[in-house]
Amino acid sequence: MAKVNPHFQRIQREIIFPVIEKKMEGKKNLVNLGIGDVALPLTPHISQAIKDATTEMTNRPIGYGPAAGYSFLRSALSEKHNVPAGEIFISDGINSDLAGIQELFDTSCKIGVIDPGYPVFGDTNIMAGRDITLLPCTLENNFIPQPPSCHLDLIYLCSPGNPTGVAMTTSDLEKWIDYAKEEKALIIFDAAYNSFITSDNVPKSIYDIPGAKSVAIEMHSFSKSHGFTGLRCAYSIVPHETGLNAMWQMRQNTKYNGCPYIVQKGALAALTCLDSKRQVQSYLECAQMLKNALGNEIFGGKDSPYLWWKVPEDMTSWQFFDLLLDEHNIVSIPGLGFGKSGEGYVRLSAFTTKPEVEKALQRLNVYAH
Amino acid sequence: MAKVNPHFQRIQREIIFPVIEKKMEGKKNLVNLGIGDVALPLTPHISQAIKDATTEMTNRPIGYGPAAGYSFLRSALSEKHNVPAGEIFISDGINSDLAGIQELFDTSCKIGVIDPGYPVFGDTNIMAGRDITLLPCTLENNFIPQPPSCHLDLIYLCSPGNPTGVAMTTSDLEKWIDYAKEEKALIIFDAAYNSFITSDNVPKSIYDIPGAKSVAIEMHSFSKSHGFTGLRCAYSIVPHETGLNAMWQMRQNTKYNGCPYIVQKGALAALTCLDSKRQVQSYLECAQMLKNALGNEIFGGKDSPYLWWKVPEDMTSWQFFDLLLDEHNIVSIPGLGFGKSGEGYVRLSAFTTKPEVEKALQRLNVYAH
Repeated sequence: MAKVNPHFQRIQREIIFPVIEKKMEGKKNLVNLGIGDVALPLTPHISQAIKDATTEMTNRPIGYGPAAGYSFLRSALSEKHNVPAGEIFISDGINSDLAGIQELFDTSCKIGVIDPGYPVFGDTNIMAGRDITLLPCTLENNFIPQPPSCHLDLIYLCSPGNPTGVAMTTSDLEKWIDYAKEEKALIIFDAAYNSFITSDNVPKSIYDIPGAKSVAIEMHSFSKSHGFTGLRCAYSIVPHETGLNAMWQMRQNTKYNGCPYIVQKGALAALTCLDSKRQVQSYLECAQMLKNALGNEIFGGKDSPYLWWKVPEDMTSWQFFDLLLDEHNIVSIPGLGFGKSGEGYVRLSAFTTKPEVEKALQRLNVYAH
Repeated sequence: MAKVNPHFQRIQREIIFPVIEKKMEGKKNLVNLGIGDVALPLTPHISQAIKDATTEMTNRPIGYGPAAGYSFLRSALSEKHNVPAGEIFISDGINSDLAGIQELFDTSCKIGVIDPGYPVFGDTNIMAGRDITLLPCTLENNFIPQPPSCHLDLIYLCSPGNPTGVAMTTSDLEKWIDYAKEEKALIIFDAAYNSFITSDNVPKSIYDIPGAKSVAIEMHSFSKSHGFTGLRCAYSIVPHETGLNAMWQMRQNTKYNGCPYIVQKGALAALTCLDSKRQVQSYLECAQMLKNALGNEIFGGKDSPYLWWKVPEDMTSWQFFDLLLDEHNIVSIPGLGFGKSGEGYVRLSAFTTKPEVEKALQRLNVYAH
């Protein structure tokens, strides 16, 4: 057989979701605070837009759209973000964009990824043969990644952070913009959770920092902000100032045929959907309930649907996960699943409903502060 | 700025569609026999399934699905193709699968691609730093690629072929299976147009050839068979016998979050949609009308919606394209756009309607045989 890519074998991370599902098997009456997926149904406003677009497809042939997305959606997002429409690229998911962006770079590039973090940041670079430098987000630095003393070419940041739920302030981001300019590096900024930001000093976009457009690509998603995890729509902002806009267009033209017409019509409707905003608000209230009840050893949850809970002394994140599952019928995610600096924590997700949170808190009252 | 991937610059192919669109600008009353896109609207049966699935999403939260696709669709396709459901991977387009598959292999692998052919075969390998060997499909070999005397690791075949419209017979494919076994190579078999096959001796699947499951990955699409170019759904069959099934699963789990639920429900409905079959039949009739009228110098079109038309002596494919456009108001595609062995031909697409073909034939009567 043709020689396979040897770097796939270097992915040593335990694939945790199948393990978690196995542990959940046969258990009844669980409260699932594990996965970051929609807990509320699609809003009628978005649904109607999708159905109308589907009807349109039966009235006239609607085939291939532009790889970068329809101009109706690019224009609307251009207005929302105050960037040229040509800098916006629609896709089927932020995961796809995060996975694909490293293809624009040489295999020799030095990569920095937050730890703990979303696995695709590091794994896709490892698969492409690169080594990665971990940027620890721990209690010592208040879970905020700090620019390292070494050189990096590409840096993956996420704010509000997944899994920690902690968001970077203006001054946190300024440090990274300075670093990127100094080192001629590029920041890949994962802003998937920015609709959950409530703090005044937390920017919703890295482009709020002067000069960021020349050193940062920002990625957004409809998944968490508008309940699109099952519909699949996201977008990346690739500023002309990065010098990479034409290259990303070429990559997308070659490898991608565009997001479905009906999904892009749904995304357009989502931008003006008040029910979507109410859903985000509801998830934030769930986060607040958990945070208020569970006390000082819980981080995040203010600008994010995620809470990062320190496990009791002398326990690993898997042990605490097992305890929560076996003793309290609560599903969490062991922090180790997000990288080695995730050890010592579990992630709780507020993508749930208030009755479920109340049930969870009754079961967890031993941890109440 | 971080060092960019130097291989992107090696893509020398002229991006023809923008050039063609520019030439079309301002012209009235064109008959478009250029692009291979749907000319008939979505069938009501498929549309209804998508709307029902959208309603379902408003009744209960439906979020992330499996990266490889929902079991309802994998099972149905498993039955259709008589392969295990675990060998079927649903995606958002055959383009995505064709672009991604090379990631499983070492950068040293020797790549063979048909010429003329679908650009993504070669371009994605060039972008990954590999050199490619062209497998010419010319009048001399009746447009059927032949196994070369040199070693190849990965071979991209497409039958019925795009752009030539010529399909490989059982004995043509047997030669390639023998070659792949001898050379321990893998065949990527693009079967996107197999629903157009009418000839008895043309297999609809490479797996009809004994032993093919250990040396071939077969890719299918709903685009041309069920009018899904704007909806985006496709699938790859990755047999366990190739040793690559787990690796592709890992690639998809890492880089892809699955095809939208509503699109997969539409694809399930498509499998039993009689109107889809009628649409394919209608396109085939358009192909037959063109073939019958335009005579001996036209190839393909029997098992394919594409016709490969030899241009008059002393003309290039771009010159004949210009002549057809300027003198006859007919849009074609110059063969050179599909690779250097495409020079001397234009592609006509039968993704159109009979009234349009009749209009075209009146204009082209000077070429009638």
